Amino acid sequence: MPKKSDIPKATVTRLSKYLRFLEYENERGRETISSREVGERLQYTDTQVRKDLTYFGQFGSPGVGYHVEELIGEIRKILGTDRKWQVAVVGIGNLGRALAANKSFLQKGFEVVALYDNAPDVIGMEVAGMTVQNVDAFSDYIRENEISLAVIAVPATEAQKVVDLMVKAEIKGFLNFAPIHPVAPDDVFFVTVDLAVLFEQLTFRIGHGSR
Amino acid sequence: MPKKSDIPKATVTRLSKYLRFLEYENERGRETISSREVGERLQYTDTQVRKDLTYFGQFGSPGVGYHVEELIGEIRKILGTDRKWQVAVVGIGNLGRALAANKSFLQKGFEVVALYDNAPDVIGMEVAGMTVQNVDAFSDYIRENEISLAVIAVPATEAQKVVDLMVKAEIKGFLNFAPIHPVAPDDVFFVTVDLAVLFEQLTFRIGHGSR
Repeated sequence: MPKKSDIPKATVTRLSKYLRFLEYENERGRETISSREVGERLQYTDTQVRKDLTYFGQFGSPGVGYHVEELIGEIRKILGTDRKWQVAVVGIGNLGRALAANKSFLQKGFEVVALYDNAPDVIGMEVAGMTVQNVDAFSDYIRENEISLAVIAVPATEAQKVVDLMVKAEIKGFLNFAPIHPVAPDDVFFVTVDLAVLFEQLTFRIGHGSR
Repeated sequence: MPKKSDIPKATVTRLSKYLRFLEYENERGRETISSREVGERLQYTDTQVRKDLTYFGQFGSPGVGYHVEELIGEIRKILGTDRKWQVAVVGIGNLGRALAANKSFLQKGFEVVALYDNAPDVIGMEVAGMTVQNVDAFSDYIRENEISLAVIAVPATEAQKVVDLMVKAEIKGFLNFAPIHPVAPDDVFFVTVDLAVLFEQLTFRIGHGSR
């Protein structure tokens, strides 16, 4: 497989979108599909669809298109979701609760299995069938349970401390909702969701009048 | 200004990042800055920084760099945040509550001013200093208060209905957390936050071992 550095971020995002669409079609019994139809439904060109997939190998055959179920398997392999991922959520405020209770992750291979907070009145609380644990005590639990992803839903001022603790506990990837860019070793990955940035994308599009 | 269709999405996201960094430096009294320093701090090349800005005009001068405050003003104008935006949040579950209570939007020009839900036990509740209103009755309030952005934090099955209602009330942009792509007229814009897609970006990076 190519190094991630060679592959545009936009390709990875599109792979997720292709996957969602293929899963949808697969549930409806669809067996084969063309790059043109995938593109049309998601508003990309068929060239774009084929180019994105070509980074990872040769899929599909001329005149037949892609086998839906096979391509789902291949894209999951590329994205790393051909296995289950256990997820810890840190910071059980409103956002943390929303994430803990989100059942749709599970279908996509992500299972929230542990909740952490540092507030005495939150520790011990039952949320979405789990007991909130003390953030200072999570290392052993995380290692033993092979949790490798964490969601950071704590205030900006707490985020770096949480990341430091979790990196020690061998967390490899963070979905970060704190509006900072935490520092971590090179083999630890972050996807930061900055809601202000998303709002700005929206106002930019409204102002420039085109999708 | 160029049509949005000519400008890569990644440029718009980077403009937000430049803006955050420039605001940070401005608060610390910084007056001028070079494209190289902006790039270095955010891990882009200086060519990238200059290219992104060139879409919108000529900023900065050789040997001096950019005037920080001036460039902040220009980027805000490009992104449409040289004015305030009033925001409605629809769906006052945990996610809606988290968004309603988020104070950091305000500094960036986004103010949550109205909350809506359809559940009888939620309507009338006080959340973050606002009273949750009935989603069926919002048209007049939205028009009178010049609310043009909405956050969709309702279940997927409710999202299209909410969008239809809000488009009638002249909402122009949606930050959508429901895992569907709602249908709307061409002058209505969506930024969809699909948490599964973000998790997949993370597992892709972990699997391919490079930032």
